[in-house]
Amino acid sequence: MKPMNIGLLGLGTVGAGTYTVLSRNAEEITRRAGRPIRIVVVAEKNLVRANEIVKGTCRVVDDAFAVVNDPEVDVVIELIGGYGVARELVLKAIANGKHVVTANKALLAMHGNEIFAEAQKKGVMVAFEAAVAGGIPIIKAVREGLSANRIEWIAGIINGTTNFILSEMREKGLSFDSVLKEAQRLGYAEADPTFDIEGVDAGHKITILSSIAFGIPMQFDKAYVEGISKLDGKDIRYAEEMGYRIKLLGITKRSNAGVELRVHPTLIPAKRLIANVEGAMNAVVVQGDAVGPTLYYGKGAGAEPTASAVIADLVDVTRLHTADPEHRVPHLAFQPDQMVDLPILPIAEVQSCYYLRLRVQDEPGVLADITRVLADEKISIDAVIQKEPGEGEKEADLILLTHLISEKWMNGAISKLEKLPVVVGKVTRIRMEELGK
Amino acid sequence: MKPMNIGLLGLGTVGAGTYTVLSRNAEEITRRAGRPIRIVVVAEKNLVRANEIVKGTCRVVDDAFAVVNDPEVDVVIELIGGYGVARELVLKAIANGKHVVTANKALLAMHGNEIFAEAQKKGVMVAFEAAVAGGIPIIKAVREGLSANRIEWIAGIINGTTNFILSEMREKGLSFDSVLKEAQRLGYAEADPTFDIEGVDAGHKITILSSIAFGIPMQFDKAYVEGISKLDGKDIRYAEEMGYRIKLLGITKRSNAGVELRVHPTLIPAKRLIANVEGAMNAVVVQGDAVGPTLYYGKGAGAEPTASAVIADLVDVTRLHTADPEHRVPHLAFQPDQMVDLPILPIAEVQSCYYLRLRVQDEPGVLADITRVLADEKISIDAVIQKEPGEGEKEADLILLTHLISEKWMNGAISKLEKLPVVVGKVTRIRMEELGK
Repeated sequence: MKPMNIGLLGLGTVGAGTYTVLSRNAEEITRRAGRPIRIVVVAEKNLVRANEIVKGTCRVVDDAFAVVNDPEVDVVIELIGGYGVARELVLKAIANGKHVVTANKALLAMHGNEIFAEAQKKGVMVAFEAAVAGGIPIIKAVREGLSANRIEWIAGIINGTTNFILSEMREKGLSFDSVLKEAQRLGYAEADPTFDIEGVDAGHKITILSSIAFGIPMQFDKAYVEGISKLDGKDIRYAEEMGYRIKLLGITKRSNAGVELRVHPTLIPAKRLIANVEGAMNAVVVQGDAVGPTLYYGKGAGAEPTASAVIADLVDVTRLHTADPEHRVPHLAFQPDQMVDLPILPIAEVQSCYYLRLRVQDEPGVLADITRVLADEKISIDAVIQKEPGEGEKEADLILLTHLISEKWMNGAISKLEKLPVVVGKVTRIRMEELGK
Repeated sequence: MKPMNIGLLGLGTVGAGTYTVLSRNAEEITRRAGRPIRIVVVAEKNLVRANEIVKGTCRVVDDAFAVVNDPEVDVVIELIGGYGVARELVLKAIANGKHVVTANKALLAMHGNEIFAEAQKKGVMVAFEAAVAGGIPIIKAVREGLSANRIEWIAGIINGTTNFILSEMREKGLSFDSVLKEAQRLGYAEADPTFDIEGVDAGHKITILSSIAFGIPMQFDKAYVEGISKLDGKDIRYAEEMGYRIKLLGITKRSNAGVELRVHPTLIPAKRLIANVEGAMNAVVVQGDAVGPTLYYGKGAGAEPTASAVIADLVDVTRLHTADPEHRVPHLAFQPDQMVDLPILPIAEVQSCYYLRLRVQDEPGVLADITRVLADEKISIDAVIQKEPGEGEKEADLILLTHLISEKWMNGAISKLEKLPVVVGKVTRIRMEELGK
């Protein structure tokens, strides 16, 4: 049977991994797909590296546009990253009637609506399993495996760098800065780690998951994104004493008022399976109304795990490309004319429970003053720990866990707490999620 | 657009759940599938119950053959169970050119080869996501999500009843018999629990997973199946002291010699995520050569979780039924002409590590005698615990963990150990798996 001809854009880590896995497992993949899937041309600026990898098994060019315009190419794999030239290349490939497979979450979160609309017009597929949680087939699970369900919420550890840092901070009692350096040395964090540690990467991924869960357009600009760079190791310890772990979660939830879309450090009960996901691993919990909670776990990055997702998309495209476009799985899980425009809630409107840490004077009546402020704001307290002051100190840490309350009310209460004479400095606030019973 | 017309066979727990979820989420499901999916006829012996559930929204008949012969029906859902009349009905539905969705693992494990061959001839789909691990989309993950990988092994907690029993035995320190009674009272175990507790149900499911992982025919008759009814609570405690949990696992593994296919109580490191799956929940770990380990977790039984999988299959069939059969996902993951006939290894040829518990005389030289026998059989010891005898007892428990060894060598060693004068009674042997690094 005629092979499926692939044009590969970018031969970095994931590109090289894709080449390697496609070659090594060619026989197994052909047995599954029903026809060979072969890379016929690679575009890579570093021609020396490219030729060392492909060793003459396919053409190598340095102009990516030559690949998307190449009549021999059936499917373009976009692994260049970013959303400048990558967007142009993807749109050009679509315009040329080629299917596209991409791992580019930033591109989809920012320009997905435009890209999927163009793909729809041209009747081609844009597949993106590798864009969220690397090798975990989470796009397929949400879009196809759970299609019977009204999805209620999704919460995921979808950035390996930050989960590695949080795991090390907890296990070794180290500070954020020292673990970040270690992560950079080990290759778990980039030289410029901003996108990971400030939650932007997780924000792109939860934007994509939110879209396919609820059938809404990609709206990354409305996501609330808060990273872990200001997280104090102290809070990880105190959380643990109270039976919680702190994880950087991407969360999206449907309520009557709209859709929550947020990334932030989150306390979750230590006994939840997802709380025990350590190191650079990823895991996503999806709550459906019929199925209840389901969890998907695996490697969220790296050459071969990401290649696994890229190639699964190639097999899907190979199996489905002759089907009528209207009988394929819709790009965003729902039929294009069935998307809805639920509003994304501003973070001030989101309800959650809170962990609060206050630095307080070690004197009588402090707890009474503080709990009075919270009571006045109708905030119920679930648990309190008052720490003894350190040797020779006159101040102590006070930790409070609250019941469910709107962020805007919590903001008001925190302002008032910070004005109390017994409270020293700023109040630390971390959101909490139960994630099921 | 013309609705997809469904004939439902059996309105028991899962049948009623399927009816309920399809009705409740009709709008959401139509938004995804692109056309309505509606039950037009139900076959159920208990007409009173059936009419109470469907309340006149579709036809109710007591003859299941009338449904599979009904020209209005596009897809038949088989939820009757067993492999007598269910087999006849499924084959008849296929012969009539209807697609089939089934949750019947026993039927597929016993007669899958025949059923898929007939479906292939007629160009219809037989979908079976609900047959393994209930609501977890594990069939889809293995068959599509991980299609880039050479699957190395799968290990799963795929029977909720036994996992509930093992969790209760460990947490509450109770015996198998008393927990089984409790499980029956709570509805987690059947009145006749044999299929669950003796590992037969898990055996059916791992047979199906093995087939789609390696592209081999269903061979349940060659599976090794051992349940938990003889498991002593003592071993759960000792395992825990050594950092392990005991789970009933379905395991299938590819080695150079052939395919392992087995169900038995298994010690696994307590720190593995799957070791922390408690109660009636299911979880499956799939190890692929590119992706590494991935884990899938959720409810493995119950009305709505199973309905979630049944309906996901209906949506898949709706999306794909107009595609050419050769462009659909193959039933058993590999193209029908690409199946291979790897031999299933007899359990005697399987290698694993072992937990051994011996009842020994409390006298000098015992450990020397026992370790000598193992050394003679070239069995390396990884850990030993010798317990003190109980108050007034002259015998003590000795626990050994061994390195990797063939079962046949272990059988020989155990025979010799049982002949030692210092060893009292039978040696208890439980297999161990590391399940990753």
